[in-house]
Amino acid sequence: MSHSLDSFLRPRSLALIGATERSVWTRAAYANIQALGYTGKVHMVNRRGGTVLGRPAATSASQIGERADTALLMVPSDVLLETFPDLKAAGIKNAVLLSSGYAEAGAQGKQRQAELVATARENEVRLLGPNCLGFVNFVEKAPVWTVPVRGPILPGKIALVSQSGALAGQMSFFAQWQGIGLTYMVSTGNEADIDIAQVIDFLVDDPQTRAIGVFIETIRNPAFFAAAATRALAVRKPIVVLKIGASEVTAKAAQAHTGSLVGDDRVFDAACQRYGMIRVQSLEQLVLTCELLARTGPLGKGGLGVISMSGGMCEIGADRSVIENVPLPALSEETVATLKAMMPDFGTPHNPLDTTGAVMLKPELFGAVIDAMAADSNFSALLAIADVPSDQYDNNPLSISMAEHVAAALNRAPVPGIVSSHLARPFTALTQTLVENSSISYLPCGIHAAVAAFGRAFHWSRGIERGLAPAAPHRPIDGVKPRSEREVLGYLSGKGVPVIPMRLAQSAAEAAEFAASLDAPAVLKIASPDIPHKTEVGGVALNLAGQEQVVSAYETMMAKVRQAKPQAHLDGIVVSPMRAGGVELFVGTMRDPQWGPSIAVGLGGIWVEALKDTSLRLLPVNEADVFEMLGELRGAKLLDGFRGAPAVDRLAVAKAVVSIGNAALCLGPELVSLEINPILVQGARVECLDALAVWDDVTAAER
Amino acid sequence: MSHSLDSFLRPRSLALIGATERSVWTRAAYANIQALGYTGKVHMVNRRGGTVLGRPAATSASQIGERADTALLMVPSDVLLETFPDLKAAGIKNAVLLSSGYAEAGAQGKQRQAELVATARENEVRLLGPNCLGFVNFVEKAPVWTVPVRGPILPGKIALVSQSGALAGQMSFFAQWQGIGLTYMVSTGNEADIDIAQVIDFLVDDPQTRAIGVFIETIRNPAFFAAAATRALAVRKPIVVLKIGASEVTAKAAQAHTGSLVGDDRVFDAACQRYGMIRVQSLEQLVLTCELLARTGPLGKGGLGVISMSGGMCEIGADRSVIENVPLPALSEETVATLKAMMPDFGTPHNPLDTTGAVMLKPELFGAVIDAMAADSNFSALLAIADVPSDQYDNNPLSISMAEHVAAALNRAPVPGIVSSHLARPFTALTQTLVENSSISYLPCGIHAAVAAFGRAFHWSRGIERGLAPAAPHRPIDGVKPRSEREVLGYLSGKGVPVIPMRLAQSAAEAAEFAASLDAPAVLKIASPDIPHKTEVGGVALNLAGQEQVVSAYETMMAKVRQAKPQAHLDGIVVSPMRAGGVELFVGTMRDPQWGPSIAVGLGGIWVEALKDTSLRLLPVNEADVFEMLGELRGAKLLDGFRGAPAVDRLAVAKAVVSIGNAALCLGPELVSLEINPILVQGARVECLDALAVWDDVTAAER
Repeated sequence: MSHSLDSFLRPRSLALIGATERSVWTRAAYANIQALGYTGKVHMVNRRGGTVLGRPAATSASQIGERADTALLMVPSDVLLETFPDLKAAGIKNAVLLSSGYAEAGAQGKQRQAELVATARENEVRLLGPNCLGFVNFVEKAPVWTVPVRGPILPGKIALVSQSGALAGQMSFFAQWQGIGLTYMVSTGNEADIDIAQVIDFLVDDPQTRAIGVFIETIRNPAFFAAAATRALAVRKPIVVLKIGASEVTAKAAQAHTGSLVGDDRVFDAACQRYGMIRVQSLEQLVLTCELLARTGPLGKGGLGVISMSGGMCEIGADRSVIENVPLPALSEETVATLKAMMPDFGTPHNPLDTTGAVMLKPELFGAVIDAMAADSNFSALLAIADVPSDQYDNNPLSISMAEHVAAALNRAPVPGIVSSHLARPFTALTQTLVENSSISYLPCGIHAAVAAFGRAFHWSRGIERGLAPAAPHRPIDGVKPRSEREVLGYLSGKGVPVIPMRLAQSAAEAAEFAASLDAPAVLKIASPDIPHKTEVGGVALNLAGQEQVVSAYETMMAKVRQAKPQAHLDGIVVSPMRAGGVELFVGTMRDPQWGPSIAVGLGGIWVEALKDTSLRLLPVNEADVFEMLGELRGAKLLDGFRGAPAVDRLAVAKAVVSIGNAALCLGPELVSLEINPILVQGARVECLDALAVWDDVTAAER
Repeated sequence: MSHSLDSFLRPRSLALIGATERSVWTRAAYANIQALGYTGKVHMVNRRGGTVLGRPAATSASQIGERADTALLMVPSDVLLETFPDLKAAGIKNAVLLSSGYAEAGAQGKQRQAELVATARENEVRLLGPNCLGFVNFVEKAPVWTVPVRGPILPGKIALVSQSGALAGQMSFFAQWQGIGLTYMVSTGNEADIDIAQVIDFLVDDPQTRAIGVFIETIRNPAFFAAAATRALAVRKPIVVLKIGASEVTAKAAQAHTGSLVGDDRVFDAACQRYGMIRVQSLEQLVLTCELLARTGPLGKGGLGVISMSGGMCEIGADRSVIENVPLPALSEETVATLKAMMPDFGTPHNPLDTTGAVMLKPELFGAVIDAMAADSNFSALLAIADVPSDQYDNNPLSISMAEHVAAALNRAPVPGIVSSHLARPFTALTQTLVENSSISYLPCGIHAAVAAFGRAFHWSRGIERGLAPAAPHRPIDGVKPRSEREVLGYLSGKGVPVIPMRLAQSAAEAAEFAASLDAPAVLKIASPDIPHKTEVGGVALNLAGQEQVVSAYETMMAKVRQAKPQAHLDGIVVSPMRAGGVELFVGTMRDPQWGPSIAVGLGGIWVEALKDTSLRLLPVNEADVFEMLGELRGAKLLDGFRGAPAVDRLAVAKAVVSIGNAALCLGPELVSLEINPILVQGARVECLDALAVWDDVTAAER
């Protein structure tokens, strides 16, 4: 079954509507068509007919005489809308619109865009843009792109999608200068119709595309984006994302407490985590990470073996691997023995492996050393550091021979291998020739960028190993709105969340009876919908041991509260066991307008307030997610038992957090946030001590 | 007065000793001499005489007939030592030795190096190397460098010094590909004689060199290194350092507690902070940061103004500036008005400034916009994003015109301005020509790397603004070794450190009298050199109010302790006030074998243990240092008053920390570490509650 964008992005024929030789857009678009060697039919359309760039022009699309798959619209904006009925008449179903002045240009522009979309829909035309640069299908050499495409066209494995046309072009240039070919480059602009998610969805099915790089300013349809990302993950096709917005003021309307802890940007991080997308920090990294994974595929168990003839490079590689979380396993004993036999002058070989300058005298040694590393099952990928010449200064037989030996060894290795230059360096036509001659899998990006890309590749591959994210199960909404602390804790308890025992006593005798059944001294708290601040009115009594103390506290409390708040309705007094010691955790759920409900876990009390030391995931989460979240906390050491406190039972905590997340989902979309602070953990005993639910029918002022 | 390395690194004549046409080293060295156009005399020396590369060869150095400044030694290792008397006879005082097989090659090699150094000294010859590639003086076009130097030689402002010759060469290539010229490139190798610090010291005085980039594996003489760095800072010449070792296992021999908190690498960070060095994470950043500061000089008050014609780039610039700590001030109202008048289609202009694609139609607008930004006193530097063409694909009149307008505007601006490409891109001969024609201050490194370099440049400049680091004053060693908690606290108190009141009572009546004079309930602690763990034997009593409680506690404690430890010598019982609440801080000093005494400040208690949330500086520190240290703590928010606790008086804390640091210095070099944990801060009241001193006459087991 073909994808809905198939005829759009794989056009067998093109129409340039409004083509004219005076237009730089027409000339550039046609030059690209010629330069790439597009083999489909190209139709020129100009109201006045005649010829354009040597080709006869039809006076309208319907005058072409046969259907074209995709049209590039270059007509003046005042007659643009009239073009659509003509497209419909001509059977053209796909159009690229470059013009700016639409939704990006204020209220008037938004109105124009709405009219545009309505007209396009009415005439059954899919639209890419406006305010974009078009697309290039490098696989089938079909460009609808209005600035010059940089040649030569290299065979490619990665696709680039960008809301910014300029940055798509810049990334394609950078790819070229890295010796990296592309399959597709698509600029989606204002996304009046086709958005990034739809293009990703198309690319997931494209057999040539092995990785998808995306530059995002805004995600317009998070649900479809998530669905496309989930499909990509299912077929192990990495999506590498640069999304701007880290510098945005992330404070949201005060959603209880959680809102101030997690900004939009962290929610997007959580979405990347959930949907297995790789987030990068520069456009260069975006291209390099895509290409690395397109070449290696998901990395297996084990780590990276690094080989360089420079000791300094080895040490830089070791440092950077720590920073970028690249696993650098030790060499096996067999490998150590093999290497020692090969190079007696070595000290003790280790990873990264310093071949020493010996390989300058014996380039074949570089290959032999790689063979030895490749045979070591500790490694699931290899990175060799070597420069492929770029000009007359470095085009020497030694460098070429070295590249050939390195390439041959990596190409026969059972694990993927990449060669990176020492530092970032040029990739010239000479380099291209040498790379092709030796079939070397080379990136001239330097070790710093290469290790960074490997860090992301390993992280992504480990995520895949752990299994796909849990699909959001259908959860029936319970249709209740617990509000008071007691109601919320009661609701949570009903959903399987461990909550501190609470019984509502309506007499001193009852309180004493409840207290006697506890395994600890008692705490009494006044229960009243009218008393939010219990302590101020004497509504809390702690650490009560024995019947006498409980009875006395009950009576004193009732008297004090009645005196302080004569109008308050009193439900009674809640009796709970007294807790002390242990580790306090914080769990909060919140609802992001784009990505839906998420959950944050952190150390409670001042930790969460002063350090904002929390880990965030989209809901639902499973126990493995919570384990990972706890491990991400900077204060994680506190969970392992501290100053005599028992270690936290992480499984018990995980079960509680999973249940809280599920309970929040069952409370439905009107729940703004649900906060449990603290959850007290004493070894295997996990208990929610306090809870707060915020509903969207409560104004910020009321909170 | 000329520097001691003057004749070495600025040779007016060279001698190639052991020169032979068969040697690749000889050929490369001589090719470099010719390629650079060295104007000094070059003498060939070969035992057999004859001609080498068309030049007559003397049979020995002393046969040359005149003195040469610097010799390159290429003689076989078995006759190397014999060469030195010949050098002496010839009056040659400087020699470069390339050969490996010395200190880097095990015990035998170390022995060879010791003999080499002794022989060189005896014959009054300074030595660069062994195991190095030599040096290039680009200013005077004097190369003693044995692998090909990449041309063309660009006029330079930065020097590169590296213990690794290979990486020096790699950095010089990268510089070339960025259009960056060098003044010097020096590889110091094994540093048998001349080390990195001496070369830095030479470069501080070199008028052409405006920034010094250094690749370091080991610092052999930290004191001289620090002195050279201090001289560099005094003349505002930045030193940019890549030092490997971040991945080293940094655990040191247990030096009380502090040792486990601060590894070698953090101590080097502290040294960078103290001596105003800029630490970077990649060799590319090293070169770029040097060049940026060489072009801009120290940056003034204010921040960076960023201008780009791509909205996406502006947003990336904003994000990266947050991450890299680049200040991005808002536009002044006047600037906003000027820009609005200039480009009515703008929304509200802000920094980074999106010129929009309008500049593609009117390139002069790019210049005008820069003029407006340059007139805004909020900015102390400008960064414009524009690509200078590199080949036929982008060599168009529009790009050239844009570069010219950008260059002209930046060149007339009152603040330094840099142009960076959008993404990393090539710098070709064409680029070089265009850069020279337009005098554009261009870096083809891309916005990501450019903003990173600006981040470091601003950090360094702010450090300079705050004033130079305090010179270590001469502090007399007190010659005492306080050991018990009471002795250490007593010593600190004598040095002006605020310590909790402590009085030694020798009777219950005395204890009661002392307690009565306190402003709080009393704490009693047994005072005995033989009882390290007081609580276990009933030697601590807390929160005693009134004479009766104190007397009773005194007598009970004495009885209990006598029973538990009948042999212990009891000095009496210490009476102190009871403290509760407030913020606990941790202060620890430690002595690094390379960099000497340092001090760590952190939040006390579980914070320091679980989070290792400390800030580190070399000693001595002043109050401004401590303010900065407190600001670096992740839990700094706790200092500002938390949950009703009063805000910490940072000045009072700073005074206490400064005094503790000075006290540690006065305890002399046998003090391994001094730990105050906690210091309790309640508003303006700062008190050391507990202290531990570790001396190097105590074994780890005894601690």
